[in-house]
Order: sequence, then C-alpha cells, then structure tokens
Amino acid sequence: MTQANGYAATAADAPLAPFHFERRALREHDVAIDILYCGVCHSDLHTARGDWAGTIYPSLPGHEIVGRVSEVHPSVTRYKAGDIVAVGCMVDSCRECRECTAGFEQHCLNGATFTYNSPDRQTGDITLGGYSDHIVVREEFVLRVPDSLDPAAAAPLLCAGITTWSPLSRFKIGPGMKVGVAGLGGLGHMGVKFAAAMGAEVVMITTSPEKGEDARRLGAHDVLISTDKAAMAEARSSFDFILNTIPVGHDLHPYLGLLRREGVMIIVGAVEPLPPVHGGALIMGDKMVGGSLIGGIPATQEMLDFCGEKGVVADIEIIPIQQINEAWERMQKSDVKYRFVIDMASLREERAAA
Amino acid sequence: MTQANGYAATAADAPLAPFHFERRALREHDVAIDILYCGVCHSDLHTARGDWAGTIYPSLPGHEIVGRVSEVHPSVTRYKAGDIVAVGCMVDSCRECRECTAGFEQHCLNGATFTYNSPDRQTGDITLGGYSDHIVVREEFVLRVPDSLDPAAAAPLLCAGITTWSPLSRFKIGPGMKVGVAGLGGLGHMGVKFAAAMGAEVVMITTSPEKGEDARRLGAHDVLISTDKAAMAEARSSFDFILNTIPVGHDLHPYLGLLRREGVMIIVGAVEPLPPVHGGALIMGDKMVGGSLIGGIPATQEMLDFCGEKGVVADIEIIPIQQINEAWERMQKSDVKYRFVIDMASLREERAAA
Repeated sequence: MTQANGYAATAADAPLAPFHFERRALREHDVAIDILYCGVCHSDLHTARGDWAGTIYPSLPGHEIVGRVSEVHPSVTRYKAGDIVAVGCMVDSCRECRECTAGFEQHCLNGATFTYNSPDRQTGDITLGGYSDHIVVREEFVLRVPDSLDPAAAAPLLCAGITTWSPLSRFKIGPGMKVGVAGLGGLGHMGVKFAAAMGAEVVMITTSPEKGEDARRLGAHDVLISTDKAAMAEARSSFDFILNTIPVGHDLHPYLGLLRREGVMIIVGAVEPLPPVHGGALIMGDKMVGGSLIGGIPATQEMLDFCGEKGVVADIEIIPIQQINEAWERMQKSDVKYRFVIDMASLREERAAA
Repeated sequence: MTQANGYAATAADAPLAPFHFERRALREHDVAIDILYCGVCHSDLHTARGDWAGTIYPSLPGHEIVGRVSEVHPSVTRYKAGDIVAVGCMVDSCRECRECTAGFEQHCLNGATFTYNSPDRQTGDITLGGYSDHIVVREEFVLRVPDSLDPAAAAPLLCAGITTWSPLSRFKIGPGMKVGVAGLGGLGHMGVKFAAAMGAEVVMITTSPEKGEDARRLGAHDVLISTDKAAMAEARSSFDFILNTIPVGHDLHPYLGLLRREGVMIIVGAVEPLPPVHGGALIMGDKMVGGSLIGGIPATQEMLDFCGEKGVVADIEIIPIQQINEAWERMQKSDVKYRFVIDMASLREERAAA
C-alpha cells in the first residue's frame, strides 16, 4: 500500500482500492503527466464493475484528466515540463485511417486506444486511467488547458464537456435557435452551459420540477416539465434541437413531438436499446434522431479554448481519492452537482503518510 | 352507372366501383382539370380499405394526377385551358403558417387539405381524389408538367417521385456520395433513378437477388444483398446516405451499420412502429435516422422541372380503371414494375358506352 500510485478494482465485485503499477518508460512522442485532478464519469463505474462486456482486471478508470507535464521524450514538440494539460477518453488511435486524418479519432476505423481498459498499440498492455497520480500519453492526444480555467473544474470537460459540445458544435447551435436539454446530470449540466454560451435559447426538459431553479442558474432560459401534458402540448413543434442526455432507454415520442420541421434530437447518454419509435413520428415533420460519441482531438481542443474564452467549466464537488467508492454510490443516486472530481494530492499525501 | 365520373369504395370491405359526384362550381383561384392519368399508390388502398383510422366513405382515392386544364376561374393567373398540369397529395393548406409560407405545405401547422379523405377548408366536404375524370384544385396546388415528359409516366412523380426526391434533395445528394436505396418498389425505383440522375454512386440494397438486374437497369451501380453477411460486413461504414423505402417496420441495425460517420438514413415507407434501436448503433459513428413526408409545392415543381431536364419518369404499367381492384391485389403482392397508372380514357369510354 505504501507504493500505491492509483486506485483500481481487481474484480467486478471489488471496491476500488490502492494499487501500484510501473510507469511506462517514455517512448517517442510521449508526455509524462503528474495528474492534479480527475473527474468521475459513469463509464468509470460501469467499466470497473464489469457492467459492460470486456473489462480486464485490474481496472483503473478515469478519463477526465488535468495535470502538469513532468517530463517529455526529446521527440516531443508540442509540450514541455510545467505545462497544464489534459487527457480525455483516448490516448492513441491508428492516426492513418480516414477518420483519424479527419480528426475524428474516436471513430478510428482500426479502433481508438481508450484511456483505460484498452490494449496499448505497441505492447498490448491494458491502459490504466486517471485515478492515479500520473499518466504517460503521446503528445497528439494531450490537450492544452487555457490558463484562465480552474484545473479542477476543467477536468469534466474532457468527457462530459466534449460529449455535449460535439453535437452542439456539429449542428451549429447559436443565436436564434431554441435548444432543449433533456436530463440534468453531469452531461446535461454541461449541455445547458454550452448551449447558453453559444447564444441559443435554452430550455431544460426534465421530469423533476425541483431541478428547475438549478437549471436556470446554469443558464437555462426556461424549464419544461416533461410530465406536464399541457406544457408539452404547448411546446409542440417549437425546438430546433434537443440534446438528449438521459442515460437509460426511454420513450422518444414526447421529445420528437417537441421538434420543429427538420428538427434533430441527438442522444449522448442512452447506450441501451431504445423502445420502438413509430416511423410516423419521424416522417411527420421530417425529423431526425441521432447519436454522438465524445469528440475528436481537434474538437476537444476547440472546446477547451471556447471554455477558456467564455469561462465555462463544470460544477464540481472535489473529493479525496479515498472517498471514491462512496462517491460512486452517490453518483448512482444522482446525488452530485454535477460531477465529482478527485483531487490527486490526496493520493500523494496517502503515500507520504504511509 | 351511366353517370359515373369516378371509382370509389362505399365501405371498408367494398371493392372500388363506378361512382358519380357533382363537380364543384369554380371558386376564386380554382382550376378545373380533365384527368388524363392517375397513378396507383399504396396509400390509396390503405385509405379506401380503412387500414388507417379516419376513412370517410364514399372514399375516392388517387393523388398522382396528370391532366389538362379544362377551365379556370377568372381570378386564376398561373394556368389556362389546355395546359398539361399535375396534382399531388395536397389540394390546399392554410397558406399562412410558418410552414406554408416556407413552402412546406405538407407540414402545415393547421393541417394540409389532402387530395382525398380530407375536409375542404371552405365547405367541409370530404375531398375526392384522382380515380376520376376530373378534379378542381386551387391554382397554388397545381403543378406544371414539362412538355418533354410522357404524361402517363409522369403521374407517379406526384407521390412516389416527390417522396423520394425530397430527402435526396434536402441532403444534397450528388457526385462523390455513395447512396443506398433499401426496398425496390414504387418509391425505391424512383429513389434509384433520382440518386443516379443526381450523380451519386447508387447501391440497391435488397433481400432479393433477383431484383439486382432490374435495379441496374434503373440506374443502380451496384447491388447489395442485405442477407449476405459477408457482403454487408464488407460494405460497413461506407454509405453517406440511405433512402429507406421499406414499407413495413423492420430491424434498422443492418442499415445503420452501413453508414459512414455522420451518415443519415431517411425512412419514407414505414409508417409503422420500428423495432427497438440500440442507442449505441447511433452513438458509434454519430449516425442519424430520420423521416420525410412527401414534399412541399415548391419542391414538387422543382422535382418536375428536374425530371423534364433529365428525362426521369416512373416505370409504369397502364391499366383501364375497370381493372383497379385486380391492380390493388397485384400491388399488394409487389407484382408491378413499378407503378400502375390508370388511363382515364377508360372511364370516359365506359360512360360513352353506357
């Protein structure tokens, strides 16, 4: 335990516990990063607990990473020791296919290397994520964090941020557009902030009236209670775009009814079967439902720069890494506004005290 | 029977039979049309047989109409007697809402007046369609048929044509794009012709290998058999756009797998519940599924003009109106290449002989 440099699960039913691993020697283009903060994402929990197929143990999650460059390989040109940088969901990809060369590494045709639970392209070793005090990543997958951003509150931008930014940016959300955000959690709260910062009229769509006040504080101009039939009927055919962050399968019809002609709803949360949709709900009004997966490296840097300019960060609750298991329990009950972020100083202190 | 000027169903279980009705007196902006040809659409059958809710009897269907102007109200400015014109699925709308003023009358917020089984906006009388030797329609809903087009083969353009043209045009299908057309019936055969005429690489996607030759004759550059797992795997992530004309609910996953990043599949046939789609099938690859309903009047005229320029018409089988019930039986078995068109001279002859 004295040597612990991360927290990992050793089996599907094991809590996260102190864990030691060797830092990899720097390879060409490698950047070594002392992790300062790491956001806590639902994917971390699902992966470590084996909810999705393919978890390899020990599983050390975390893909919302902000840190300081400690060392770089001599071949590195983009970063130097001391830089405040970030790492998101990916640490490598083939860098050659049409998706990678277009800057959509998350859709790499040969499979991106994800930040955890993914085989390293050179050694086959399984990647270990950000619930650690350090990480080594090749420079093309390292992002620059604007000086103006609080590094702790910037951490969730690397997954919750880019996941919501990406579709809003793709559909050119801006002034004159009415945008709904369905679901107010880690993703939803970033969606509200981004859509408002982009200049759209933002409406929080939620089943929970008590979330209204908070949604307005985050930037929503209005709140629509999805169980209020009269309000839903009045809002019919009025939305240009809906960002759907609801994390489970759910009936899409009420949301489709809110869209204008050629309106688009993008799903970023529900990696699950969606109940049947009637073809007529798409045909009437020429509507569309789509999905969106995180974002490529160029889009992620663009998002961070936008955040630096507009002062957008996540609303966070900082925890020491020793509280990660409790944080996961609370996250499952949506008892967090809106993202836990681990202060990695807690891990260094644990080691020093041992 | 001697007075029959149309064929109508008098009940859900009744065959179409000769029927007489009074032509309405010309109102402001009205154009009286002697119908020359009327295409036979699946919607005609579904409506007349009461498969969908709301059929009012007697039901006289037909919304793929080409005819000659016989008379116009003095207020009419766009047409004169003798003009070859067309009427599609709509004969009126509110003409004031944001959809109508934008030229999307099919999505009129106050409800378009459809060519049959729809209440007239002034009298409330139920509209009667094109299985008749005449129709009266206000000039804004009358289309001009280019001289170069065979009027019989042009008739199906008014529904099968515009329904497939509309999404292909909206997504700017053209050279350099790979377009799939799923389903080879009345709509699918127009989809293949249009996508090819627009300059795209067109692939017919079908369960029926025997349709391949015909698809190529219609303009498809390749044929993909959707039950051939190896071929489907090889075609994965290669389509920019899929026009889905399959008329019944079906599993969308095989088609979604064919789409490239940000690829779009538009459903025009299945006005039915679609089986559950996994959120991941949309999220992985940032894909979209949408729908499209016929097209507005400006788009319909644009489509007809395009057809005049490119020489695009439907492949048809001409029938006398006396064979309409047999034609419906054959249509239900997909035994038509690819659209029945009624030659309305048969109705005039029937009356003259009586």
